[in-house]
Amino acid sequence: MIGLIILGHGSNLPDYRKVVEMHRERLEKLGIFEEVRTAYVIEEPKLTDVLRDMRSKKVLVVPLFIAYGEHLREIEKALSEFGDKVVICDPIGESELVTYAILISALRRINVLSFE
Amino acid sequence: MIGLIILGHGSNLPDYRKVVEMHRERLEKLGIFEEVRTAYVIEEPKLTDVLRDMRSKKVLVVPLFIAYGEHLREIEKALSEFGDKVVICDPIGESELVTYAILISALRRINVLSFE
Repeated sequence: MIGLIILGHGSNLPDYRKVVEMHRERLEKLGIFEEVRTAYVIEEPKLTDVLRDMRSKKVLVVPLFIAYGEHLREIEKALSEFGDKVVICDPIGESELVTYAILISALRRINVLSFE
Repeated sequence: MIGLIILGHGSNLPDYRKVVEMHRERLEKLGIFEEVRTAYVIEEPKLTDVLRDMRSKKVLVVPLFIAYGEHLREIEKALSEFGDKVVICDPIGESELVTYAILISALRRINVLSFE
């Protein structure tokens, strides 16, 4: 009974939330997690509200952030009421998959990676 | 003779640039691109300065952004002096590799993906 929250920074770009929601839908479809939700640092819904609303006994929070900074440290402090229910995971920024995402964006643009 | 620029937003987090630079080093090691550089929207070095400094005939710019917004539209407008030399690629945000980066960050944290 493990839940997942994708934690985005939030943005005034209209597409930002659409992209975060798209990742949520993809991860939900995998069927690995009981619940998959989104929360935002500078927008609603906030992490604490989402956590209160989730029935999973354990919730993994993955920050859609490049680096770990004040935002995340403050958020961690505010989660004491949830005890062991919530686990903050590493931000995705250092992932090799992000390196490959950069590579593939570049190669696709020059049709090196067009399989059509 | 193709060059690559990773375009970050910039941040007051000290780790932010380290992470962007780490991706740059990984991509440089692949040996696919003649030059691999970094540029930032709200910090130095700026994209136009980096472009002027590069010898590659074609430079691919990959935004390390979740979504395409005003920042990127303004940057595109400012690149007219470079003509065909520069190509702005899709931001990495929608990449399935970012979805997998979220998944793996979560699974690693609960040791599902520990191979040790």
